[in-house]
Amino acid sequence: MIYLDNAATSFPKPVGVYSEVLKCMENYAANPGRGSYDMVIEASSKIMDTRQELSELFNIPNLLNIVFTCNATESLNIGIKGILKPGDHVISTVIEHNSVLRPLNYLSKKGITFTLLGVDEKGYLNINNLKKKIRKKTKAIIINHTSNVLGTVQDIRSIGQIAKESGIIFMVDASQSAGVIPIDVVLDNIDLLAFPGHKGLYGPQGTGGLYIKEGVNLDSFIQGGTGSDSLSMKQPDFLPDKFESGTLNTPGIAGLYEGLRFIKKIGIENIRKHEIMLVECLIKELKKLSYIKIYGGTEYENRGAVVSLNIDNVDASEVGDFLNKKGISVRTGFHCASLIHNIIGTSQRGTVRISPGYFNCLDDIEKLIKALIDIHEKRPFL
Amino acid sequence: MIYLDNAATSFPKPVGVYSEVLKCMENYAANPGRGSYDMVIEASSKIMDTRQELSELFNIPNLLNIVFTCNATESLNIGIKGILKPGDHVISTVIEHNSVLRPLNYLSKKGITFTLLGVDEKGYLNINNLKKKIRKKTKAIIINHTSNVLGTVQDIRSIGQIAKESGIIFMVDASQSAGVIPIDVVLDNIDLLAFPGHKGLYGPQGTGGLYIKEGVNLDSFIQGGTGSDSLSMKQPDFLPDKFESGTLNTPGIAGLYEGLRFIKKIGIENIRKHEIMLVECLIKELKKLSYIKIYGGTEYENRGAVVSLNIDNVDASEVGDFLNKKGISVRTGFHCASLIHNIIGTSQRGTVRISPGYFNCLDDIEKLIKALIDIHEKRPFL
Repeated sequence: MIYLDNAATSFPKPVGVYSEVLKCMENYAANPGRGSYDMVIEASSKIMDTRQELSELFNIPNLLNIVFTCNATESLNIGIKGILKPGDHVISTVIEHNSVLRPLNYLSKKGITFTLLGVDEKGYLNINNLKKKIRKKTKAIIINHTSNVLGTVQDIRSIGQIAKESGIIFMVDASQSAGVIPIDVVLDNIDLLAFPGHKGLYGPQGTGGLYIKEGVNLDSFIQGGTGSDSLSMKQPDFLPDKFESGTLNTPGIAGLYEGLRFIKKIGIENIRKHEIMLVECLIKELKKLSYIKIYGGTEYENRGAVVSLNIDNVDASEVGDFLNKKGISVRTGFHCASLIHNIIGTSQRGTVRISPGYFNCLDDIEKLIKALIDIHEKRPFL
Repeated sequence: MIYLDNAATSFPKPVGVYSEVLKCMENYAANPGRGSYDMVIEASSKIMDTRQELSELFNIPNLLNIVFTCNATESLNIGIKGILKPGDHVISTVIEHNSVLRPLNYLSKKGITFTLLGVDEKGYLNINNLKKKIRKKTKAIIINHTSNVLGTVQDIRSIGQIAKESGIIFMVDASQSAGVIPIDVVLDNIDLLAFPGHKGLYGPQGTGGLYIKEGVNLDSFIQGGTGSDSLSMKQPDFLPDKFESGTLNTPGIAGLYEGLRFIKKIGIENIRKHEIMLVECLIKELKKLSYIKIYGGTEYENRGAVVSLNIDNVDASEVGDFLNKKGISVRTGFHCASLIHNIIGTSQRGTVRISPGYFNCLDDIEKLIKALIDIHEKRPFL
């Protein structure tokens, strides 16, 4: 099977991830932070070691400012709802995932207003436009680092600079970029960084995280037992406990630790290089096929390993089904991004999304291309 | 190692849980509900099969009314915040876990009032008292089925009947009871049932769920991508999608499936019988030791497998440390329940909590008793 849906979740994971999840479940899956016996200490240490790895990857000054969540969607909800109060204005973009657009839509019923910046035909923001949209009441800018539909990578460093100069909170959705494209929360002026554990960080599903910059005060989101201040009905106000109520996903986080160690071992720049090489080859071959329409830009710089396309006169889901029969897994449809399809003209048919990962090789891309050619040539005789 | 902290998280799990988590990660951990290739179908089917098992266990009429969460704390927050609006009144108890008390305390700043019912010295509610506390504005009753501090099992069937007669939503926190004590959402008149996946259901950490009765309308909690209605910025209004945004913990839920199958195979009544046998033996032996104080009742009926105690003149944490050195894992301290310690007189010292599980045997209890005697006899020469 050729897996080309790494934008949804990475597969496979490094083998060390599997073995650590298993080792944790079998040996040290106590409830971290609750009690003080050996298994608890081991579980708690693994959680802390994972925070340490994350802090190194993103250049986070204090590892206690990282909270674990169950996915990037939860991280985004904690951040968005934690900073925005009735009367606040927030700037985001039309290329966001529904994990940002739907919370914003929800909050718009509670007195929060938002402006969504447009993107050019390649999917890039015009940064000058951003500056013009900042109002007195603008509290935050929320930007999708890498689009899960077009692969577009936005210039978060420049945007972070604008946010800093304007005294606005800068929140980055790194769902598609964490682990593949370098992110430095200090240099990029990021106040809130939401990331999944199970995509580019190679952790198991059920993991994610949120970095909260020192001094950025978020309202608490889920309250409950934290193993701290247990005699108080008040949610602790310190990090990470404030946002880590209830039992953590210890085996998942243990797996994530191994994913992060894998990134460190291979080097994020080598992972990126490999993925770009695959995308470069993919786009080069696709461009030769006149009946294939690629959405967004076709350059390899400033893009993640995501390519959306359609074959003339063939339904995206039909392409997906055919590829599935050939043992190739890709995502078809609307990719949980409600507005960008209208802009790229795919709100009727969706797209076929190809998202290779570090474990793919050129041969996978060649087989995919061959299958796409097959679909065109053999249709309607499928 | 003798593990006696099953109230925090069950350990070990049935071996099938470990192998299914691994099998899922290695073979079918696609993103369920996103796309339609084989791996997605397999992942989605496993999620649905797990809902089916849960619906059988709790007699839930429609499996789509079960939503997966990352722990019972999230389930409780979704339920509590989903039903209560400013002006509403809610009834709960002093024996609740902080996963209920802290959300209530948080909401009290937003115009919601609550009444906490007291318990007798054994930890039981006076149901007549409950009736008297119901006001016109009372929207819900939230009850901890089995206390994580005293093991007290409340009579949820009678309480459910009162809630039904009063037209009030009945929410049950089954953190300590799910998988051990039979729960029937129909006969017990339960509107909202919050449960963890990683305790009595034997799933891995990072799993939990919430049953929402048909017609009980909750405000959405986390909004995001659901793989459904993807072109709309509005969160879907149907279950389970409304409360399942972002990537689910597929390997965790796959493990939970095996945990549920294990319960079905053994029989919940046999699990209960085994645990009660262990507790009966434990309490019988403890009662012989005059220097040990057991908190709450000392009967075996209407109690879960949780016993809180202290040894005269010995700090709870010292007991925990000694037991740990002897290879016995128990929880000491305040158990994330902010009010009950005041009532049982342990707000200074906490308690030593013993919580055996299905995988413990009588020999474990005997070794524990021997170690407790040792502590008393050898101190202060430890």
